[in-house]
Amino acid sequence: MARNDFKFCHRLRVRYAETDAQGIVFNAHYLTYFDTAIYEYLRALHYDYHTHVRERGQDFHTVKAVVEFHRPCRFDDEIDVGVRVLRLGRSSLTFHLEVLLKDGEDPHASGQVIWVNADQESGTSVKLPGELVERIKRHDGNSSLV
Amino acid sequence: MARNDFKFCHRLRVRYAETDAQGIVFNAHYLTYFDTAIYEYLRALHYDYHTHVRERGQDFHTVKAVVEFHRPCRFDDEIDVGVRVLRLGRSSLTFHLEVLLKDGEDPHASGQVIWVNADQESGTSVKLPGELVERIKRHDGNSSLV
Amino acid sequence: MARNDFKFCHRLRVRYAETDAQGIVFNAHYLTYFDTAIYEYLRALHYDYHTHVRERGQDFHTVKAVVEFHRPCRFDDEIDVGVRVLRLGRSSLTFHLEVLLKDGEDPHASGQVIWVNADQESGTSVKLPGELVERIKRHDGNSSLV
Amino acid sequence: MARNDFKFCHRLRVRYAETDAQGIVFNAHYLTYFDTAIYEYLRALHYDYHTHVRERGQDFHTVKAVVEFHRPCRFDDEIDVGVRVLRLGRSSLTFHLEVLLKDGEDPHASGQVIWVNADQESGTSVKLPGELVERIKRHDGNSSLV
Repeated sequence: MARNDFKFCHRLRVRYAETDAQGIVFNAHYLTYFDTAIYEYLRALHYDYHTHVRERGQDFHTVKAVVEFHRPCRFDDEIDVGVRVLRLGRSSLTFHLEVLLKDGEDPHASGQVIWVNADQESGTSVKLPGELVERIKRHDGNSSLV
Repeated sequence: MARNDFKFCHRLRVRYAETDAQGIVFNAHYLTYFDTAIYEYLRALHYDYHTHVRERGQDFHTVKAVVEFHRPCRFDDEIDVGVRVLRLGRSSLTFHLEVLLKDGEDPHASGQVIWVNADQESGTSVKLPGELVERIKRHDGNSSLV
Repeated sequence: MARNDFKFCHRLRVRYAETDAQGIVFNAHYLTYFDTAIYEYLRALHYDYHTHVRERGQDFHTVKAVVEFHRPCRFDDEIDVGVRVLRLGRSSLTFHLEVLLKDGEDPHASGQVIWVNADQESGTSVKLPGELVERIKRHDGNSSLV
Repeated sequence: MARNDFKFCHRLRVRYAETDAQGIVFNAHYLTYFDTAIYEYLRALHYDYHTHVRERGQDFHTVKAVVEFHRPCRFDDEIDVGVRVLRLGRSSLTFHLEVLLKDGEDPHASGQVIWVNADQESGTSVKLPGELVERIKRHDGNSSLV
């Protein structure tokens, strides 16, 4: 995918704390970047995560994550984390994510994260709220979703 | 202080994830080392933190932390984190901590962490459980406590 | 200190990754917030850290950090990290830092961080570059510095 | 896979710092557990990473990571991270990893990590040292490798 396949990007700057002795961002932090960008994507959709948790009594569980590391990011780099929903299941969301330098076209990292919506009492998966599904379809476009 | 001022040390090995672009352990991780070693100190005292939280309905809040960085630690270093209680208040515990290399005598980092025991409902400070105070006094010795 | 004692604040949003099982930001992450805000303060001063490292062959070592935790921060909180220089030594910089909620007046955390400028070859402390000292004095005001 | 498919396990204890507001280990930390366990696996093989870096002038780059989250881990859990090499390429190593509770049989997380051996000067991939390949084959058994 390329930068303009993403209708939403979250910009952040690499912190010194995120670098490692190779002078590059340590691999685990990309999952934190992905996670952070997904919450920002929900915010961009005006879907309120706090209502989801407190009023619906539901929460999202990360069930799978994949990251491919193409080129390193370094301290102070300004990066854009592109987020789009690739697949909408009954209770699951598959996000595709890419990390690009602010002025770059080639991804430095890319991957998928799968979330399952779960009832907090029972811990079992529950249907995604219709409101969330609608907002995602409206934002990312029906056609792009599998 | 020196190594043999500590009756308890927690050994751990520096992870690659904890290094930064200077090739040394990033400063914030020393607070994680301190925190981890304090829980191990409680375990060494046979004081059950989970009972403290679930049955007493109390929990410890970190209210202050001080770290001095004397010499860097590096990837793969085996370190000992010495823990002792410096001061016992009505509801507070002041820990003194030092990070030494496994075979070293000079601290690479040293500091204090202050915990306050709090009631989880009200959020206000509450008296330390007598059982915890007794165990600390027996372990670290009355004389050393202020 | 109060919010308007700071001429520089760095805004950031608490990440889910930074919370702990108490539902609040884990204590060590405040040192990461402090560190991140200090680099942003240098940027605001138009002092180029990368030149400092690559061309001058110098780097800053954190030698001491103090944090007081007044009130917790939580997931999604927008916080301002105020930074000012409290003391300018020959080779050392003492920063005072406070963490406030975006719309709040009372600090949730406050502390100091001391950096020493060091020659990367020898590892020994070296005089702060005159350019950096000048920029700090101009920004924070002579009178406020000890 | 099951526990006894692993000839090497690295035991560690979940730190408070690694939990999140859901009360479970935050997803990104599993990559840190994987990374830490891989270095311990190399140590168990008596393959010296520091010699690899300093004398050979080579280093490993993580090019892909996959994690599946089956059941959460919590503060204080003692976990075993099983490591085995699944595939040996010319310059690449594919590790299979599983996280199990100390006394458990079912994985709480599982995944793969792919490392590529690279020359530090040129940044390009280079053949895995014969010594490393031999040690892996001897440890994990020829038959199990693809």
